[in-house]
Amino acid sequence: MTQTLEHPTGTPGPGPAPADRRARAWFAAFEDALTQRDTHRAAGMFAATSFWRDLVAFTWNITTVEDPAGVEDLLESTVAGVDPSRFELAEPAEEADGVVTAWFTFETAVGRGRGLARLREEDGQDRAWTFLTALHELKGHEEPRGTRRAMGAEHGADPDRTTWLEARRAEDEAMGTTLQPYVLVVGGGQGGIALGARLRQLGVPALVIDKHERPGDQWRHRYKSLCLHDPVWYDHLPYLEFPDNWPVFAPKDKIGDWLEMYTRVMEVPYWSSTTATSASYDEQAGGWRVEIERDGSPVTLRPTHLVMATGMSGKPNVPVVPGQDVFRGEQHHSSAHPGPDAYAGKRCVVIGSNNSAFDICGALWEHGADVTMVQRSSTHIVKSASLMEHGLGDLYSERALEAGMTTEKADLVFASLPYRIMHEFQIPAYEKMAEVDADFYERLEKAGFRHDWGDDGSGLFMKYLRRGSGYYIDVGSAELVADGEVKLAHGQVDHLTEDTVVLEDGTELPADLVVYATGYGSMNGWAADLISQEVADRVGKVWGLGSDTTKDPGPWEGEQRNMWKPTQQPHLWFHGGNLHQSRHYSLYLALQLKARHAGLDTPTYHLQEVHHLC
Amino acid sequence: MTQTLEHPTGTPGPGPAPADRRARAWFAAFEDALTQRDTHRAAGMFAATSFWRDLVAFTWNITTVEDPAGVEDLLESTVAGVDPSRFELAEPAEEADGVVTAWFTFETAVGRGRGLARLREEDGQDRAWTFLTALHELKGHEEPRGTRRAMGAEHGADPDRTTWLEARRAEDEAMGTTLQPYVLVVGGGQGGIALGARLRQLGVPALVIDKHERPGDQWRHRYKSLCLHDPVWYDHLPYLEFPDNWPVFAPKDKIGDWLEMYTRVMEVPYWSSTTATSASYDEQAGGWRVEIERDGSPVTLRPTHLVMATGMSGKPNVPVVPGQDVFRGEQHHSSAHPGPDAYAGKRCVVIGSNNSAFDICGALWEHGADVTMVQRSSTHIVKSASLMEHGLGDLYSERALEAGMTTEKADLVFASLPYRIMHEFQIPAYEKMAEVDADFYERLEKAGFRHDWGDDGSGLFMKYLRRGSGYYIDVGSAELVADGEVKLAHGQVDHLTEDTVVLEDGTELPADLVVYATGYGSMNGWAADLISQEVADRVGKVWGLGSDTTKDPGPWEGEQRNMWKPTQQPHLWFHGGNLHQSRHYSLYLALQLKARHAGLDTPTYHLQEVHHLC
Repeated sequence: MTQTLEHPTGTPGPGPAPADRRARAWFAAFEDALTQRDTHRAAGMFAATSFWRDLVAFTWNITTVEDPAGVEDLLESTVAGVDPSRFELAEPAEEADGVVTAWFTFETAVGRGRGLARLREEDGQDRAWTFLTALHELKGHEEPRGTRRAMGAEHGADPDRTTWLEARRAEDEAMGTTLQPYVLVVGGGQGGIALGARLRQLGVPALVIDKHERPGDQWRHRYKSLCLHDPVWYDHLPYLEFPDNWPVFAPKDKIGDWLEMYTRVMEVPYWSSTTATSASYDEQAGGWRVEIERDGSPVTLRPTHLVMATGMSGKPNVPVVPGQDVFRGEQHHSSAHPGPDAYAGKRCVVIGSNNSAFDICGALWEHGADVTMVQRSSTHIVKSASLMEHGLGDLYSERALEAGMTTEKADLVFASLPYRIMHEFQIPAYEKMAEVDADFYERLEKAGFRHDWGDDGSGLFMKYLRRGSGYYIDVGSAELVADGEVKLAHGQVDHLTEDTVVLEDGTELPADLVVYATGYGSMNGWAADLISQEVADRVGKVWGLGSDTTKDPGPWEGEQRNMWKPTQQPHLWFHGGNLHQSRHYSLYLALQLKARHAGLDTPTYHLQEVHHLC
Repeated sequence: MTQTLEHPTGTPGPGPAPADRRARAWFAAFEDALTQRDTHRAAGMFAATSFWRDLVAFTWNITTVEDPAGVEDLLESTVAGVDPSRFELAEPAEEADGVVTAWFTFETAVGRGRGLARLREEDGQDRAWTFLTALHELKGHEEPRGTRRAMGAEHGADPDRTTWLEARRAEDEAMGTTLQPYVLVVGGGQGGIALGARLRQLGVPALVIDKHERPGDQWRHRYKSLCLHDPVWYDHLPYLEFPDNWPVFAPKDKIGDWLEMYTRVMEVPYWSSTTATSASYDEQAGGWRVEIERDGSPVTLRPTHLVMATGMSGKPNVPVVPGQDVFRGEQHHSSAHPGPDAYAGKRCVVIGSNNSAFDICGALWEHGADVTMVQRSSTHIVKSASLMEHGLGDLYSERALEAGMTTEKADLVFASLPYRIMHEFQIPAYEKMAEVDADFYERLEKAGFRHDWGDDGSGLFMKYLRRGSGYYIDVGSAELVADGEVKLAHGQVDHLTEDTVVLEDGTELPADLVVYATGYGSMNGWAADLISQEVADRVGKVWGLGSDTTKDPGPWEGEQRNMWKPTQQPHLWFHGGNLHQSRHYSLYLALQLKARHAGLDTPTYHLQEVHHLC
């Protein structure tokens, strides 16, 4: 724990700052209650409205409980097994606007954790308002980093020496034959790669498989003008941050190169050109039998755990529309769109008005196509620069770095905001953006575009967490709609003719190309395809918070459904999301898998309940 | 400048610490003298014995001048053009053992610099004892990093958009045809790659060519047990440090992968499988005509500058020995040694007792060969762990990082120690190693090995700087000699017979294999091969300090001969060394090339004189 300066007796000088004293007192009392196993007293130290979010440290789950009653329930179930101890401030606590913010560390029976607490005075006592506990490492299984890093060279003379290259080659050859992966990760985009790197570090035998030829092709194969929509500071992968000469919004092929090289230098076992064709769970053996095709040859793998990292977007939604069989032009889902090159001078109708729709419309327009966007429902748009400034700037930016906000700290701050009240923190940022970009929104609406800020005005990030859709981060294409360069139509598609798209109101849109930018289903659709509909139904909907807003039906879940945590299907996990989530949550998923590999007891508190099938 | 806390008048409290006050006063007076162009007064602020090392900031050269007279001469020649200003402390100065250490920044007419000064009281006044000035960046040509990084995405809709990939491909196609490199770097090991990355950042059109198939093959193709002899903290490349899970001594193939990855993500223009066959300087045009073979096809390049980065070791020294034509076994130079695999059970004689000899002997022994080392002269050996602890630990280690010693700071501290007195700082470290490893040295000498600590006891690093040879960092093989597992013979080779090596004293060593681990020549040998003997002679010996010690004849040069600075051959440069030097000195070489590309005036103070041809 960082100590503030202590003055020798008799010398005038400040003691610990009040905020720091308050935080220390709170943690001392909290630890005392836990040590006494007095869960009621410990729970009473939380505010009437309060949130404890635990990332795997207490619950072997990703869970938020609320209010003293929720805290007491969590502690009742976990405290004896977890045996928490050594709560210490990681740096001096600080107070602002009546809230004391305290970074802390702690230990459990099997691990070490990090946390962030916000305390407020209530009824004359300091009480926890938000409380984050996050497992950081397992005792005896610390990662070989820094002072623990491998020596590399094996000094001394050894006639049985195996070089690094020989060992890597032997492992490559053994994998899938004499060596079975304990974890099979299906999907080798940023999610699979980040998890693969963490499992490698933790010494868990794992294999990442991907259908593309090379790591990074997941990005390379997308439309050619694509750049990341999130800025670089938000996008780092574990262990190796982008260098400071990396562009703010990296072009897709550059990200592709980075992912390929990252996979190599992190020594992630990775099979390219490999597809999983079927999987079944052997209840008796407690593991999976997965049939794959590697470079066209069948291989059977027997991993204990199966991780679906095939994209949080799930399977493409391709609408069924009468007349699709008579339409003479080209039609495809946005995920299969080859890019604009072939469509100069062609009449292109893009169904949808979210990210993919805008990006595709913009690229087609740039290549001289005649483009019409069909808006079916309202969409939320923010300017990229405004989002970067007002949405992420405090945590992920040069100014955040300058203020000492490391990526790890930013991730924990982000994780410490309870989903239940997160929208309250988001709304002001979007109100600010509405103000700053008022002219843009006015022009957009004047052009007939139906714009929204989310059901409760909480904007883009909540839409992302709740439904993973319904927005566009404008990097230019929204201006084309505002200016009328990309034409706009409204409503559902009624049917297609040989050469038109006909909307429900009778509008006919002449078309050589129809792109269905109609979104994606739930990730458990991947499980239905690979395993069975039964397993997909057992797991239920993946993603979303149960916020009872558009496309995110209640009841309230408290966490993203089924992501990075145990599901109702033993030994099946879901991983994915943007680069930030791939980085941060891969840690907790990796630690859960490592704990199982190491044979630790991992009783799950509040296993995911299933309220929706998809 | 970092300010110490200023207390309002009347409040008790410390003012700036005395060391800080002293440093500020010194710099204020120094800057005043410079502004007045009073070079005599400025020079008088240096101690009677003192050293000013300048890295390109004042001299457009890498130069050390000594004592007030040397300082006055440097300033007389440079101060008007350089117009130095804004000397400010970069952090509070500190005092220890009577020496005030001050990190500072400054500006010149065209650039910004960083420096490190050590002040001592002499005749009642603070005077500079060591003084380092290093150019950091050129004004108006700052690197796109951090807040200056590229945006990547070009927001907005643009029918003429060129994607990153299209731009990279167009550049690849243009290079060597419609686009000539301003700088051609011959050799794509760590030196060429690091320089290529810096030139890329600075926007200088450059091309790195290398004979191997892939970047990193320079390491991959070496003997299979090779690991780096320097620890990871010392080995970072510019812009992208090794992650903290990187091993201390990385295996060669892992370094190969890193270099390949680094080349790609840094977008270094790099032609593999390419050899330079001849080069000539066109005095009139002020540039080079270089004939190369790329994948077997001839290409003519016309770079303005030519950088030899073909290895500081220079060309292999292969001794001419009577009987080489009658010897029936295999014989080759250590640089051509294919590794031990084919020599199990064979009688192997390795001529030499430096790094390569030991590494090859060790690997052969591990593979069951019968190995004899022929020691021709005494060698200096240090244990790898001891070197890491006592030689580098204060600057390059986890504990250095913990103490706030960044790589950049460590490099500047290292650079700030004047070569003239560097041995004085080195001697105690090696005395410590002699003490710690006394048992090892005793056993080694008992086995008949002739061991030395350098002409003046200053050990390995001085040998490296002076002659680049004469030592071995023991990672195990010296123990084999000490234990008699690898046999030892002494003396020069007299001749070879059909199946023996015969030494001058008549000793006959039966041999199936002879390896000449007999070292390398001066780097200007590469220039003789590629350009002409005339140019090689004009440049003279490369490397070494003129220390008047074994293999480093005087007169004293003050800096490493011809490295990273202008030579007597216009537009010809030499670059190389270990990873540390490749990282740090590539900055100063890149800035010199950038300045020329930008058309800045770059008058060279104290152009390298030539005292030795090789």
